[in-house]
Amino acid sequence: MKIDDIETPAVVIDEAVARHNIEEYQAHCDRHGLSLRPHIKTHKLPHFAKAQMAAGAVGITCQKLSEAEVMADHGLDDILITYNILGPAKLARLRRLVERVGKLCVTADNAVVIEGLSAAFADAPRALPVMVECDSGARRCGVASPQEAVTLAQAIADSPGLAFAGLMTYPAVGGGAQVQAFMAEAKRLLTAAGLDCPAVSSGGSPDMWKSGEVEGVTEYRIGTYIYNDRSLVHHGVRGWQDCALSVLATVVSVPAPGRAIIDAGSKTLTSDLIGLTGYGQVLGHEDVEVSSLSEEHGTLVWTGGEKFRVGQRIHIVPNHACVVSNMVDFVWIKDKAGSVEKFPVAARGGIT
Amino acid sequence: MKIDDIETPAVVIDEAVARHNIEEYQAHCDRHGLSLRPHIKTHKLPHFAKAQMAAGAVGITCQKLSEAEVMADHGLDDILITYNILGPAKLARLRRLVERVGKLCVTADNAVVIEGLSAAFADAPRALPVMVECDSGARRCGVASPQEAVTLAQAIADSPGLAFAGLMTYPAVGGGAQVQAFMAEAKRLLTAAGLDCPAVSSGGSPDMWKSGEVEGVTEYRIGTYIYNDRSLVHHGVRGWQDCALSVLATVVSVPAPGRAIIDAGSKTLTSDLIGLTGYGQVLGHEDVEVSSLSEEHGTLVWTGGEKFRVGQRIHIVPNHACVVSNMVDFVWIKDKAGSVEKFPVAARGGIT
Repeated sequence: MKIDDIETPAVVIDEAVARHNIEEYQAHCDRHGLSLRPHIKTHKLPHFAKAQMAAGAVGITCQKLSEAEVMADHGLDDILITYNILGPAKLARLRRLVERVGKLCVTADNAVVIEGLSAAFADAPRALPVMVECDSGARRCGVASPQEAVTLAQAIADSPGLAFAGLMTYPAVGGGAQVQAFMAEAKRLLTAAGLDCPAVSSGGSPDMWKSGEVEGVTEYRIGTYIYNDRSLVHHGVRGWQDCALSVLATVVSVPAPGRAIIDAGSKTLTSDLIGLTGYGQVLGHEDVEVSSLSEEHGTLVWTGGEKFRVGQRIHIVPNHACVVSNMVDFVWIKDKAGSVEKFPVAARGGIT
Repeated sequence: MKIDDIETPAVVIDEAVARHNIEEYQAHCDRHGLSLRPHIKTHKLPHFAKAQMAAGAVGITCQKLSEAEVMADHGLDDILITYNILGPAKLARLRRLVERVGKLCVTADNAVVIEGLSAAFADAPRALPVMVECDSGARRCGVASPQEAVTLAQAIADSPGLAFAGLMTYPAVGGGAQVQAFMAEAKRLLTAAGLDCPAVSSGGSPDMWKSGEVEGVTEYRIGTYIYNDRSLVHHGVRGWQDCALSVLATVVSVPAPGRAIIDAGSKTLTSDLIGLTGYGQVLGHEDVEVSSLSEEHGTLVWTGGEKFRVGQRIHIVPNHACVVSNMVDFVWIKDKAGSVEKFPVAARGGIT
């Protein structure tokens, strides 16, 4: 099928750009001796998870059990779930998942989670590797101090069915120095306590090119780098030519001078602003702002004369690629010849 | 299944509240002699579309073809699609849809759309009813003046395969007087041009209780009223007890005093702020703010002492119900006894 024949709104991925992004960042990690563990929350596609593994990734990262289950269904065999998993239903699913994945690791930042994991895995044939999530400055999850990290590491090591697997953090933007200081002190305390620290995992796209500068980090988790988006262009780490994901939309109305309405609204582009003004970048029209969204309409505004005609198709790079691919049941992957193929976003929809 | 047994995050609908909302607003429209045409974009569930029809609605409103197709599959037989439909693929789908729906009507706000509709329906056995969308002040789609409305009405009446079906507007909040003035003038001009105006359709939830005050409007389209949300409570038109939809979430971490992390983020609650501060209301905790969201984490903040424990479940009323039900493949509908049943959100996912 050709791209001109697909209906809008549509999420389109340029395969060559995505593969270039995978290879380029793998090379960066290889150069810096970092294990790369891509976060599949961005694409949720076994197709690209396998491409990331083939390029040299050590494994993948998932943010929830349902993503990991789908990836395991497709043969992905080394999975880190960077989330506190709680409650009998999820723990039972985790136990079943471990039985069919070569290496599965989870994270924990509190004793309640560790107690639940231990109760579920006490009689398992293999110990479950558990990393301690550390708050190095992002103020989301994570223990607040290296001392608390060691307390939890000890609790994991002492818990039946669990094995301490290292330290993990999701840093604040620009937080490399904080990560380095936190991890150095935590490792010193771990050594003093007689605990080995098999890995230190950090991540984040805005600081992707600085990942090699943070001493002590052994593994890097990154999601958006495969598609990139307006936010990363805004951060100056990628250019528009590196943006593999765009929303193809149709101009459905030009009701007034300087205003056009497209068929992509908040149910396609999402309302994520993440610090930006406007809801995306219309490619080839730097002077046009996606000024507001309703559910199925987007409003484009500009100053000056005529610019769009009703029926015209445009490509928009969204602010945040990860949430856009989550909106749709399928994406279109485009090859160099302009042919497109439909791929179900296999790991979306299982919200738990 | 009981609500305590479902996994989180989950979108839960209180059926009794939803049915009360349906009946109460139907009674309002009946009192004011307004035809009620509920917008199913809010729930996307044939279950509730049928309940709305059973309560006395004249038909339903859809925002896109895929919603209408699913509703037709479930026997809904009077559908208005309030959208400019463009392009050969969508026009072919519309033509097929018309053949299996008793009454299907669309809207148009420009000549290109009318030409496309006419080309697709010129040889159809029945003329397609087309309303003219008018911009009464919301600055989205719609012709800007009553005179332009008449020009398009005449074009529809003159186009093979089409029949002029009236005027439609989606008003700005508080825009009742503008709607009344626009429609009065447009109807005067239509009469002068010898054109009959079979219906005047307006809508919108924030002004739901004022819908009967706008002279000349014959039909009201409203979506959110079935679930309600934090935005409508903020507008003062509904209370928390009228909110049928909530997100059930689990506290997964309490990493610091005054901060807790839940398993509902922007991929569940969405980033829709629509003028509010924070991303939802935690029921029973008026002093807690949902201060930020990442994809699978929500951050709760408050001042003061201990409030939540890890593993605790909370209900959050989202800012905007319509976008939340669109995030999930299924919702849980809860009866008065606390039993829940899974309903697929049948009309989501077909993004075109």
